[in-house]
Amino acid sequence: MEEKVDVAVIGAGSAGLYAYAQVKRRTERCVLIDGGELGTTCSRVGCMPSKAMIQVAEDIHRRALFEREGIEGGDGLHVNGPDVLEHVQGLRDIFVDKVLSTTTDEMGEEFINANARFLEPGLLAAGERRIRASKVIIATGTAPIVPPSWKTFGERILTTDDIFELEQLPESLAVIGLGVIGLELGQALSRLGVEVTGIDLLETIGNIDDPEIGPLAVQLIGKELPLWLGQPARIEEAGDGRLKVSAGDNSVTVEKVLVAIGRRANLAALDPEKAGIALNALGVPNYNPNTLQIDDLPVYIAGDVNLERQLLHEAADEGRIAGINAVAETPIAFRRKTPLVITFSDPNIVMVGARYAELDQAHTLIGSVALGLLGRALIMGRNRGMLRLYADKASGRLLGASLLAPHGEHLGHLLNWCIEQQLTILQMLRMPFYHPTLEEGIQAVLRDMIGRSDWHQTPYPPDLETL
Amino acid sequence: MEEKVDVAVIGAGSAGLYAYAQVKRRTERCVLIDGGELGTTCSRVGCMPSKAMIQVAEDIHRRALFEREGIEGGDGLHVNGPDVLEHVQGLRDIFVDKVLSTTTDEMGEEFINANARFLEPGLLAAGERRIRASKVIIATGTAPIVPPSWKTFGERILTTDDIFELEQLPESLAVIGLGVIGLELGQALSRLGVEVTGIDLLETIGNIDDPEIGPLAVQLIGKELPLWLGQPARIEEAGDGRLKVSAGDNSVTVEKVLVAIGRRANLAALDPEKAGIALNALGVPNYNPNTLQIDDLPVYIAGDVNLERQLLHEAADEGRIAGINAVAETPIAFRRKTPLVITFSDPNIVMVGARYAELDQAHTLIGSVALGLLGRALIMGRNRGMLRLYADKASGRLLGASLLAPHGEHLGHLLNWCIEQQLTILQMLRMPFYHPTLEEGIQAVLRDMIGRSDWHQTPYPPDLETL
Repeated sequence: MEEKVDVAVIGAGSAGLYAYAQVKRRTERCVLIDGGELGTTCSRVGCMPSKAMIQVAEDIHRRALFEREGIEGGDGLHVNGPDVLEHVQGLRDIFVDKVLSTTTDEMGEEFINANARFLEPGLLAAGERRIRASKVIIATGTAPIVPPSWKTFGERILTTDDIFELEQLPESLAVIGLGVIGLELGQALSRLGVEVTGIDLLETIGNIDDPEIGPLAVQLIGKELPLWLGQPARIEEAGDGRLKVSAGDNSVTVEKVLVAIGRRANLAALDPEKAGIALNALGVPNYNPNTLQIDDLPVYIAGDVNLERQLLHEAADEGRIAGINAVAETPIAFRRKTPLVITFSDPNIVMVGARYAELDQAHTLIGSVALGLLGRALIMGRNRGMLRLYADKASGRLLGASLLAPHGEHLGHLLNWCIEQQLTILQMLRMPFYHPTLEEGIQAVLRDMIGRSDWHQTPYPPDLETL
Repeated sequence: MEEKVDVAVIGAGSAGLYAYAQVKRRTERCVLIDGGELGTTCSRVGCMPSKAMIQVAEDIHRRALFEREGIEGGDGLHVNGPDVLEHVQGLRDIFVDKVLSTTTDEMGEEFINANARFLEPGLLAAGERRIRASKVIIATGTAPIVPPSWKTFGERILTTDDIFELEQLPESLAVIGLGVIGLELGQALSRLGVEVTGIDLLETIGNIDDPEIGPLAVQLIGKELPLWLGQPARIEEAGDGRLKVSAGDNSVTVEKVLVAIGRRANLAALDPEKAGIALNALGVPNYNPNTLQIDDLPVYIAGDVNLERQLLHEAADEGRIAGINAVAETPIAFRRKTPLVITFSDPNIVMVGARYAELDQAHTLIGSVALGLLGRALIMGRNRGMLRLYADKASGRLLGASLLAPHGEHLGHLLNWCIEQQLTILQMLRMPFYHPTLEEGIQAVLRDMIGRSDWHQTPYPPDLETL
């Protein structure tokens, strides 16, 4: 028998849960459907366990500075792999439990623990149940891409779905794909004592496209682990139970391979074509990023599954936008936030606002500073990196930034919020910069830019404002 | 013979150097006078060496988390006191040399390396030279206060002038005065293995006046070292060459005492009365904080010496304001920056904008969140602390904040810049908060505040904005 509801939300990850909460504010006639593992990508296999692993990696890595600082005994420190993994898993379980206890654990019949698929427009099958929904929200997330030929290597091939389940650290590891995830985990595992080799088809890492920051990131992180860039990776049996991974003329024999070449949208199993949903060349439907509606259909798509802005805070926004629109008379267009992307490598790689490739070079002023002599960075022993800011020449407004810096996550927020406020470089320079902080690096860039611009009209220093 | 100049700047510290640079843009008829030790308070005995010491202290302290994280051997770490001090001194020398090499080192006759004093209005004696100046800028800084009776204990009494000159860490130390400086150094030295006892006449530490943050700071930092609050300290000979320090019913025998009860303005030696400068009850002249002019005299006062805003970025602003005004037709009033005060203790204690005591409680909404369950703080193992935000009930504008948080320095900048932009709590909530970061703690406070306010007028979640 068909159950009739106003809204069916498919996927109980971050986007789906946020969407469902919005729907519930307007109607009780709704269901949440998920047949996969619960607890969100972020908490189970994403942001949270990776940050836990990175924290331990940074802590052990810090010993490189101990002798210089007058701390003895750093050589005696060592990583107990199983204990590190247990620690990471323990934290992960806390975060997963927190998600579950406040969401699906409390739901009764309205949560359907089964995979959903379309039978026809508006009609879903989910296990034994048939759901007739006026509106559907697709929030099914993504899954790591592993080429079929590599799957034959079995448990020696890891993705983020497996790596946080390990009970032992591998002795050696090749990371294929050095985007955000591959780079974060590759560097962290290297610091934890794993022999890591990083490989990417591109010449860049962490998705950074700034022509100064990108090569510098490769240079700095390349001191910690070999980075083979610009060549595709091949995997074959090494003959001793291990795998031989090659790229160009390089090859290495490793115990495990972490495949981090990207994630595909979880859409095929939904039989989207039965709902009249067409997929484009990227394998996702065309949708409006401000309403999240798919074409003119009564279907919305939210979260990682649309392959844009695969970040928790964006997934939360998208879930809520889709949830609001699924119960609205007509879909409402919402403003999207200024982009912020952080790779939690060391140094952090941060992209704020407009990407370098998006800039109109003729009308953009770029300022930069190397961290070398920045007082606080020197004190921290972490003075390698660079800050680059992009501003519109005519208006002086900040357009974007690329950072390679310790604590770059914080500088990224500060700059992002300035773009949200449409601040100019002059206005930013009038803000307080406390001493000695890393924020003074931003101040140095701003001064550099003003020195090369015609923005400064008063006879006073630009960071002083008359009453 | 009298030398006639347009401007004489007394004091070659941060404020004086910034003032002098502004004066030089308009006239060559100027002198810079300083008979004391060069290199700025900040670089020699202030911000910089203290941060260097704190960094080492944080690094060794971090081992408390190593076992939990799966890092073994933390017990084998130990501090080599002389090496730590040499490291701190080495960094300090880099910063001092950087100041000197770009300033007084390059100056000829216009720099007078002697103490200045007024002979009459506009006439200064500096060593053998007599300077007749149309305008004078006083930027003579401050010096630590040590009661005369304590000076008799000789080298066992330390101030920030001495502590960074030590070649060995003392075995035991009492810190008298737990404002910013005493608290920072007391906690750092404790972590470096010194038996530290902290004492203050007040019931608070780090100058924080928020009634939730203050006691929590005492509780957290009090776990690391005994804090004796609310009683005056007494010092006497212990008989064994050490000193007995008492407060109320408590007493301790220590090798050294760090006196950090405040700093007095370096004014008396200038004979200010001969220039017609009257000192108020605080021992400083009355002056206009926006022009820095003293009364209606052709004399300006900039930097720590006026006992307000004793921070580098404010000293820089004040130096420049005084420098600009000393060569202006009429003094120009400049807007001053939104207050920001950071104690680099762990957790940081941060005060932004309006202090708690300055709030009109009836018209203020206060929001707060404990860091306990904040994901990233938990991952860092640093989830003890609290964020408190103050907003105007009518307008929703952020007025101020008090923070007790790791990386509070960064959160402080973010909040400070929001106040500078006159943002409301609703506007702030529309900014991106990346996951998992400490900035999400601010998001939690904002949500808490909106939940208890009538600011939210739309049917949509307040952090979504329609196009």
